[in-house]
Amino acid sequence: MNTTTSTHGTLTLSADDGVLFVKISAPPLNQLGPELVSDLVELIQTLDTGTPHKVVVFSSADPEFFISHVDLDKVTEYRQAAAALTGEASIALLFRRLSQTKAVTIAQIEGRVRGAGSEFVMSCDMRFAAKETAIFNQNEGGMGALPGGGAIQYLTSLMSRGRALEVLLAAEDHNADIAELYGWINRAIPQAEIADFVSKMAYRIARFPTHGLRQIKARVNHLTLRPTDNFREDSDAFSAGIKDPESQVVIKKAIAKGFGSSRAAELRLGEVLGED
Amino acid sequence: MNTTTSTHGTLTLSADDGVLFVKISAPPLNQLGPELVSDLVELIQTLDTGTPHKVVVFSSADPEFFISHVDLDKVTEYRQAAAALTGEASIALLFRRLSQTKAVTIAQIEGRVRGAGSEFVMSCDMRFAAKETAIFNQNEGGMGALPGGGAIQYLTSLMSRGRALEVLLAAEDHNADIAELYGWINRAIPQAEIADFVSKMAYRIARFPTHGLRQIKARVNHLTLRPTDNFREDSDAFSAGIKDPESQVVIKKAIAKGFGSSRAAELRLGEVLGED
Amino acid sequence: MNTTTSTHGTLTLSADDGVLFVKISAPPLNQLGPELVSDLVELIQTLDTGTPHKVVVFSSADPEFFISHVDLDKVTEYRQAAAALTGEASIALLFRRLSQTKAVTIAQIEGRVRGAGSEFVMSCDMRFAAKETAIFNQNEGGMGALPGGGAIQYLTSLMSRGRALEVLLAAEDHNADIAELYGWINRAIPQAEIADFVSKMAYRIARFPTHGLRQIKARVNHLTLRPTDNFREDSDAFSAGIKDPESQVVIKKAIAKGFGSSRAAELRLGEVLGED
Repeated sequence: MNTTTSTHGTLTLSADDGVLFVKISAPPLNQLGPELVSDLVELIQTLDTGTPHKVVVFSSADPEFFISHVDLDKVTEYRQAAAALTGEASIALLFRRLSQTKAVTIAQIEGRVRGAGSEFVMSCDMRFAAKETAIFNQNEGGMGALPGGGAIQYLTSLMSRGRALEVLLAAEDHNADIAELYGWINRAIPQAEIADFVSKMAYRIARFPTHGLRQIKARVNHLTLRPTDNFREDSDAFSAGIKDPESQVVIKKAIAKGFGSSRAAELRLGEVLGED
Repeated sequence: MNTTTSTHGTLTLSADDGVLFVKISAPPLNQLGPELVSDLVELIQTLDTGTPHKVVVFSSADPEFFISHVDLDKVTEYRQAAAALTGEASIALLFRRLSQTKAVTIAQIEGRVRGAGSEFVMSCDMRFAAKETAIFNQNEGGMGALPGGGAIQYLTSLMSRGRALEVLLAAEDHNADIAELYGWINRAIPQAEIADFVSKMAYRIARFPTHGLRQIKARVNHLTLRPTDNFREDSDAFSAGIKDPESQVVIKKAIAKGFGSSRAAELRLGEVLGED
Repeated sequence: MNTTTSTHGTLTLSADDGVLFVKISAPPLNQLGPELVSDLVELIQTLDTGTPHKVVVFSSADPEFFISHVDLDKVTEYRQAAAALTGEASIALLFRRLSQTKAVTIAQIEGRVRGAGSEFVMSCDMRFAAKETAIFNQNEGGMGALPGGGAIQYLTSLMSRGRALEVLLAAEDHNADIAELYGWINRAIPQAEIADFVSKMAYRIARFPTHGLRQIKARVNHLTLRPTDNFREDSDAFSAGIKDPESQVVIKKAIAKGFGSSRAAELRLGEVLGED
């Protein structure tokens, strides 16, 4: 091993034997805001311009939150930050672009992924989640909007119409076992084993010939990624949806209860959204 | 709570806080005949013309049969009843239309769903089934026809080619655990908990803003519902298939054994179809 | 019962009550070489020209290997053998053609299916695997190529993008429970029960009217089989991929370790591919 570690804003990078370990650290809640988006943009650019990293593993520095959701105070800013990569102010297109990076991407999920957090991990090539700590929620429906980061596109590819509708319409917190049953993730792995499990798989893949890995990923993407236009439309519909008067009432109520600010409320956000 | 209950032919309706509970009661076997179809037509019309019902929960008054299957003595009549909604004498198009109703629909499955019963619940947005009592069978293949109510369209969306072919070709009775594994339903829930589980989810969804719910459902339908023509073709192929001489022999034998008339035979229809 | 048994090269056939049991025997490793391909070509031709066999059950005479993978020494020869059926030297097109045979095909999987072995069983209509002995691996990515027999087409139909990418990129050995979870197979069945389970299902289906079975299969194929061109492209990409210099290094190393020759190495091929 010959690990080198460096910090780039919200991301801590450790490179080793063809694998790049990327730890997300955007305290206090690992929200997806302009800084994290900018750092992801830079990372994707690096991955696609001649780096030796064949495999990227994403994990979180916060054991309770992988990525909580977007920072609703900075929608314009984080969307603008995404435009630096794709030319368009859309998180959905950023995530779709991440699905197409040449490197193989693996999400090692401990703690909560909600909203754009769920969309981020779905845009990775594979997802493994800690049985005891991972929590999943595509919560936008509970706040009056459709998800704008590609959730509708990814969820309807990963699971049946019935399960996708449940996830989107009921906006509940789900544990890793349900996520595994529904196909939201590849597999639920015991918390004590997940880091070893994922890094072992990452090193294994990184030893295989580059040409074959890239060709496989490109072919699978060709068959499974939904059209760009779909992602763009969802992105626009989200921006419009959160401005709807009925949605604004619900969003303001959620913010008053601690959405985006209170760690206690965020820990049990699924319940909070269902309360009066 | 402010529940109002009323009976409309084969359907008992209870409205409460944005949720409409619909109990199916078409004794003795909850067969899909002209009366039940007419009542469903009226219900769908009501749902899409300014009612306050955001969510509909379907359940059965008969603990052993949710919907058994179509009434083979009245194919012309029930198809004609469906035409009142869609303009075409086809159960497949009626069910596809149900998938597109503005309300969110949830099937709470206790007892048997076979043939058109399975197709009805697959056309709902979500399906939860009682672990101990729910039985699933897409039995038409065992009687010499392809299913005419959309089963081929829905099954190939919900599960893999291999599992859809097994379900369709082997025409066996499956319990809720297999239905869950295969993706036929969202989840199997213990019988003692299913009513609470479903109504809690229904009330939760009904509290969320209407605009977001409808937009999510419309987008998911756009991505996951097969084209109308496919449903129409299956509908026609079923009508032709049951007239095939070899099919007629098998159908007559099944009727002689109690198909559509004997509760004892209907309880174990999966086995009956496999016997000489 | 009125079983007649005969041996045709690598295949032993037993016909009984509309079911044809086909046992694969190509010692020492049940590799897919020109002889097995020729025998499969002849079998498919027989199935589609007026035989009384409604259902075909494939199993293996070797309890440790169902089909190990292709014989890399005879790529040109086995591809040429496939051309006798489809007019094109491609295993992918042969397997796609098998998916379209009029008979219902069931794979009863005991032992290992890797590479083209996995592709063969995925081209069957249904797949049941022995819990204790079945092993699955789509190993081509570990040798620098994309799979050329249709794996990308079938895997992305059977399971989510994330699981298909894991299977293809990590090239690991998976047991029947994972294969069941991922949708690779219909179900994992205890070894002691699988032969009875499969034959009971086969006889059941064989009693149903032919017209309905064929119509169902044709409709499902129409909805679920990927276009011929996709299969052809994968087939060509595999042939090119294994000639890549980096792939050649890895392939030669695998052969030196016993790939295709040593039973001991083949038993644990998943591990072998991950070693230096």
